[in-house]
Amino acid sequence: MDVSIVGGSGYAGGELARLLFQHPKATVKHVTSRKNAGKPISLLHPNFDGVSRIKFSLPDMDAVARDVDVVFLATPHHTSHAFVPDLLDTGVKVIDLSADFRLKSVERYEYFYGEHDHPEYLEKAVYGMPELHAEAIKNAMLIAVPGCHASSAIYSLYPVLSNDLIEPFPIIVDSKTGSTGAGIVPTPASHHPARANVIRPYKLTGHRHTAEIEQALLPSLAKNQQHAFKVSFSAHAIDAVRGILSTVHVFLKEELDSERPLYKAFRRFSKNQPFIRFIKKNAGLFKLPDPKTIIGSNFCDIGFEKDPLSSRLVIVSALDNLVKGAAGNAVQCFNIACGFAETTGLDAMPIFPL
Amino acid sequence: MDVSIVGGSGYAGGELARLLFQHPKATVKHVTSRKNAGKPISLLHPNFDGVSRIKFSLPDMDAVARDVDVVFLATPHHTSHAFVPDLLDTGVKVIDLSADFRLKSVERYEYFYGEHDHPEYLEKAVYGMPELHAEAIKNAMLIAVPGCHASSAIYSLYPVLSNDLIEPFPIIVDSKTGSTGAGIVPTPASHHPARANVIRPYKLTGHRHTAEIEQALLPSLAKNQQHAFKVSFSAHAIDAVRGILSTVHVFLKEELDSERPLYKAFRRFSKNQPFIRFIKKNAGLFKLPDPKTIIGSNFCDIGFEKDPLSSRLVIVSALDNLVKGAAGNAVQCFNIACGFAETTGLDAMPIFPL
Amino acid sequence: MDVSIVGGSGYAGGELARLLFQHPKATVKHVTSRKNAGKPISLLHPNFDGVSRIKFSLPDMDAVARDVDVVFLATPHHTSHAFVPDLLDTGVKVIDLSADFRLKSVERYEYFYGEHDHPEYLEKAVYGMPELHAEAIKNAMLIAVPGCHASSAIYSLYPVLSNDLIEPFPIIVDSKTGSTGAGIVPTPASHHPARANVIRPYKLTGHRHTAEIEQALLPSLAKNQQHAFKVSFSAHAIDAVRGILSTVHVFLKEELDSERPLYKAFRRFSKNQPFIRFIKKNAGLFKLPDPKTIIGSNFCDIGFEKDPLSSRLVIVSALDNLVKGAAGNAVQCFNIACGFAETTGLDAMPIFPL
Amino acid sequence: MDVSIVGGSGYAGGELARLLFQHPKATVKHVTSRKNAGKPISLLHPNFDGVSRIKFSLPDMDAVARDVDVVFLATPHHTSHAFVPDLLDTGVKVIDLSADFRLKSVERYEYFYGEHDHPEYLEKAVYGMPELHAEAIKNAMLIAVPGCHASSAIYSLYPVLSNDLIEPFPIIVDSKTGSTGAGIVPTPASHHPARANVIRPYKLTGHRHTAEIEQALLPSLAKNQQHAFKVSFSAHAIDAVRGILSTVHVFLKEELDSERPLYKAFRRFSKNQPFIRFIKKNAGLFKLPDPKTIIGSNFCDIGFEKDPLSSRLVIVSALDNLVKGAAGNAVQCFNIACGFAETTGLDAMPIFPL
Repeated sequence: MDVSIVGGSGYAGGELARLLFQHPKATVKHVTSRKNAGKPISLLHPNFDGVSRIKFSLPDMDAVARDVDVVFLATPHHTSHAFVPDLLDTGVKVIDLSADFRLKSVERYEYFYGEHDHPEYLEKAVYGMPELHAEAIKNAMLIAVPGCHASSAIYSLYPVLSNDLIEPFPIIVDSKTGSTGAGIVPTPASHHPARANVIRPYKLTGHRHTAEIEQALLPSLAKNQQHAFKVSFSAHAIDAVRGILSTVHVFLKEELDSERPLYKAFRRFSKNQPFIRFIKKNAGLFKLPDPKTIIGSNFCDIGFEKDPLSSRLVIVSALDNLVKGAAGNAVQCFNIACGFAETTGLDAMPIFPL
Repeated sequence: MDVSIVGGSGYAGGELARLLFQHPKATVKHVTSRKNAGKPISLLHPNFDGVSRIKFSLPDMDAVARDVDVVFLATPHHTSHAFVPDLLDTGVKVIDLSADFRLKSVERYEYFYGEHDHPEYLEKAVYGMPELHAEAIKNAMLIAVPGCHASSAIYSLYPVLSNDLIEPFPIIVDSKTGSTGAGIVPTPASHHPARANVIRPYKLTGHRHTAEIEQALLPSLAKNQQHAFKVSFSAHAIDAVRGILSTVHVFLKEELDSERPLYKAFRRFSKNQPFIRFIKKNAGLFKLPDPKTIIGSNFCDIGFEKDPLSSRLVIVSALDNLVKGAAGNAVQCFNIACGFAETTGLDAMPIFPL
Repeated sequence: MDVSIVGGSGYAGGELARLLFQHPKATVKHVTSRKNAGKPISLLHPNFDGVSRIKFSLPDMDAVARDVDVVFLATPHHTSHAFVPDLLDTGVKVIDLSADFRLKSVERYEYFYGEHDHPEYLEKAVYGMPELHAEAIKNAMLIAVPGCHASSAIYSLYPVLSNDLIEPFPIIVDSKTGSTGAGIVPTPASHHPARANVIRPYKLTGHRHTAEIEQALLPSLAKNQQHAFKVSFSAHAIDAVRGILSTVHVFLKEELDSERPLYKAFRRFSKNQPFIRFIKKNAGLFKLPDPKTIIGSNFCDIGFEKDPLSSRLVIVSALDNLVKGAAGNAVQCFNIACGFAETTGLDAMPIFPL
Repeated sequence: MDVSIVGGSGYAGGELARLLFQHPKATVKHVTSRKNAGKPISLLHPNFDGVSRIKFSLPDMDAVARDVDVVFLATPHHTSHAFVPDLLDTGVKVIDLSADFRLKSVERYEYFYGEHDHPEYLEKAVYGMPELHAEAIKNAMLIAVPGCHASSAIYSLYPVLSNDLIEPFPIIVDSKTGSTGAGIVPTPASHHPARANVIRPYKLTGHRHTAEIEQALLPSLAKNQQHAFKVSFSAHAIDAVRGILSTVHVFLKEELDSERPLYKAFRRFSKNQPFIRFIKKNAGLFKLPDPKTIIGSNFCDIGFEKDPLSSRLVIVSALDNLVKGAAGNAVQCFNIACGFAETTGLDAMPIFPL
């Protein structure tokens, strides 16, 4: 399958390139970057030194439409608006890693992101979460890949919400993330002397991913729970390059006699999902998920602890923000949309320790 | 004032030594370590190379009672039990950094820590939080220095609970901490290859500090709120050497017309406290507290954000776990108990960036 | 090809497991650990959660001899002594990652490592550096995988020494390494609070790898240069989990009119070697090798700069100490010894940024 | 003594502010920043939140000349050119942290830095290294504070060169440094995802500090050694915020019977210097210098190891690039120039562990 990566100079674009270069069914025809056109991609992504001679090209949508079947957009938010309609008209499948087509509601989009140039495509896009929407992804022409924090939150909450085990409010998602999540452009906040050793609350309220978390989870709730449903999300920057851990504090609907329904909910959710691992061990250093153990892989690990002193349940999920939180998930959607085995090109084991 | 540090080989002991060596009113007579007796303290604390020639001595309580007026115990939990009664009998003031005398309730103590050898002293001990108990500290013979996570949580919550601004339940404290908090003894969990780059949920429920947080805050609540009051605490290990950030998710009692009561509560609490800083800025990189900006100092920074999408209030507090979370706070208590100005020996400005 | 990993609980053993589990021609029959026998290997190597159900077994050499064709020894130094003779007697190929059989000279071995139980095998062992000894590796029954620092130094120096471009003395190798190089056993030196943020000269002189560096390079020198040849090695610990950078300071035999002979020497050396990359770029962030760009891969990157102010030449080489510096190189030897393509199971692209 | 800090928005300026705010003999009248004039300095240096209300002012040299006795220039290279002549004309003492007046030779300056606007001041400036030039500093009107790498190299080499113990060539200085050395302006090289976990050779040859190292040390050599003298310097970036370790590889003039002359040389040099510590221990984790143990302090630690296998001597020195490598050393010069005790305002003990 011939594919293009539009917006290949950032971290998600680089990670897409790494996964697609090694994908047995994909041939990368273009990696575009307006600013770096003509330069070898190894200039920005030095892991490709000697392993790929491909050069950045200009984002020429005619060439893309002519040469490939599937295009991955790893462009900044708002940039996809311009490309998507024309690409779809030519029959190319679009897998968009930006936030542009993740939300169904124009109002919510505009509240969080500002004006949308093509709101008519919002309904057509499929939210690219294979664990929830595999069927829709199969036939989708426009796939909106979920946000990294959103994925982490949704995987944590879906098992317990869909089994009606927890209250629909309050739901606290306290997320911690490495520095690649903020992108490749240097800023005062990303400057190493300022960014190293931080434990920085960078977005305590009003985080944009709140909208897609709620949208994705709402249908899983019982009808009479939906009106009260609300997710309270906060994001922190810590000293790591990759990785997200979301700590989700929720409250059980009623005191359970045993933890069996919880185990059952998480096991059932993860059982048939190749990239969701339910982690709960009695021994060893990593009894619960920690991004450290899955960096570079497409896994999302989930685990939980029941608070013995209250009705609180704490769920944690760990993923690599550039893989399961972006490029890896995009490739998983690509596999489904193209009829390949879901794990094609995504089965490298994590490297540990990193 | 002549003082001793009993248990000087650990991180809290080393930090006590650093602060007391430079304290204009204190003279350190002994720094004890059973295991390292006879060795220069700079062997374990290399910052003292060339600046202190003091050697570790055996923990000889007779010598301590004879030579000094105040003794700091930086011994592991349970070790203080043995020393405290005899020391108090000799009229020496004891400032204990362990958890042994922090709780009033024997039941709570035994639930979290196991058997207590001298429960009769629990009631006599004063919880060494200068911002809440300055008067009692003045006359105390036994001061129990609060735990690091506990301090961070209490400073965050006291302003809003004592002003009846939030619901007594749920109160989620999601804490992130560096590696010194786990002590100086190497373990598989503290091994650098395993500890670097983690975002590790190491104690999601049942953390011992929960007990002292609730004990310290309960009296600040209105009577009719106390029965429902419960704090849900979770602790995470992240890649930093020092520092705690507690993110406290709480719910306002009713929608406020403005944030003024919140500002007022935090400002009033911090105004007369030399080491509590209320941080809320509109510009710059550090709009909210981050341990990065206070490492090495006795400050605890607090700040908040009101969630525009729900009744949630998010409070954050940052401190250096070895200073305001341990040794610095102990010295602050010492100052109060000895009638010195509260900031004596504690006024070094933080170093930034570290 | 059926293989065993003896000594699978350490970092090199874990990395061998990762590479061999994914190797298309290898089937791992045993991963032994005396201490952890019976436990799943994912207990110590959490990257295998859900991807391998294999359990540690006791190091039973009869079983190994019966079941497999090739055994990898990832045991501590001195431990291989006991296993190797018996294994070789049964006709099993042995690939030893320890230092036990790297040196030819008993005297040198004993100077650096202490007594050797089976010095008669020293001559039989082949030094497992594919770039220098591919032919010998093909037919070897006992392969001694080079040390991590040694590999880095040898790859840097071979091109210039074998082309008679530099003086045989002085040759300064100033090496910097991450924390995995010191193994999986927690020590005060590996304790995170003590190990983070260090720039620690941990072995300035007398490093054991000096012996194998000199042994490996000596034959490449012109006869009349050999008597003066000496390598001066120093090792530093810095804050990284993986990676070695060796900075090699040498002196050109005579002033060169141009850098062409240097380019030629490095290009010729790297050209036919699948895992040696010669890096010298005029632009971008990574103009010279940096372990950051090759972590997780079997690459060793080399580059150089000629000092415009003296006859000094500075060569740098970067590798992942657990891959090209240990397990990856072992698998490369395995491929050669078994007649597989040299890159089999080793062609995953590096992940960047990590 | 009234002082000004011109160029207060960078890291050296911030560190000067920290030291001078707490200096018992100094009163800071201005901290200038053209770009940030009017803003509180705590906006850029959050450690000053609540402890200093001073605001950045415009760099008005008339005000400076009118208000203060001593001005510290922490401006970028080339910027000092414009300020120095006018300031000196008004009788203000100038302590310049930039490289502008460090070199005596215009040719060397222009080779490394480009054109100099006021070469006539080069000879008048005193190189601000208290350990070598205390007398000159006492009466200097223009003090050029040494570079951070240069200080580290000079302190390492002076004892052995001035005692004629080592060959004047080759002298290899292999330096490793944290990220603050590159300044406060974000760049692709300082971007956290790109800068974390590096072991990056960023300036292997031609580093500007070479010139001042050679200039400072040349007079200490015997006359007949001077023609051969040359220092070969290389700089590496590693993952730390502060700190420099220089590893200096040199060769003894002749084999010594014992290490006594070396000990004697280092001891004699450090004995009367309050901020030079000679570190050589037989036990503990920090047997040799490591920046980790001196961060935040004005110490420079030096130590050595004699290579038992060759005539090589390895000297290491560790300092905090922003303190002894910049602002601390500037304050030490200030103390000398003003007749204060040399350690005034510089005697805070290092904080450990950080």
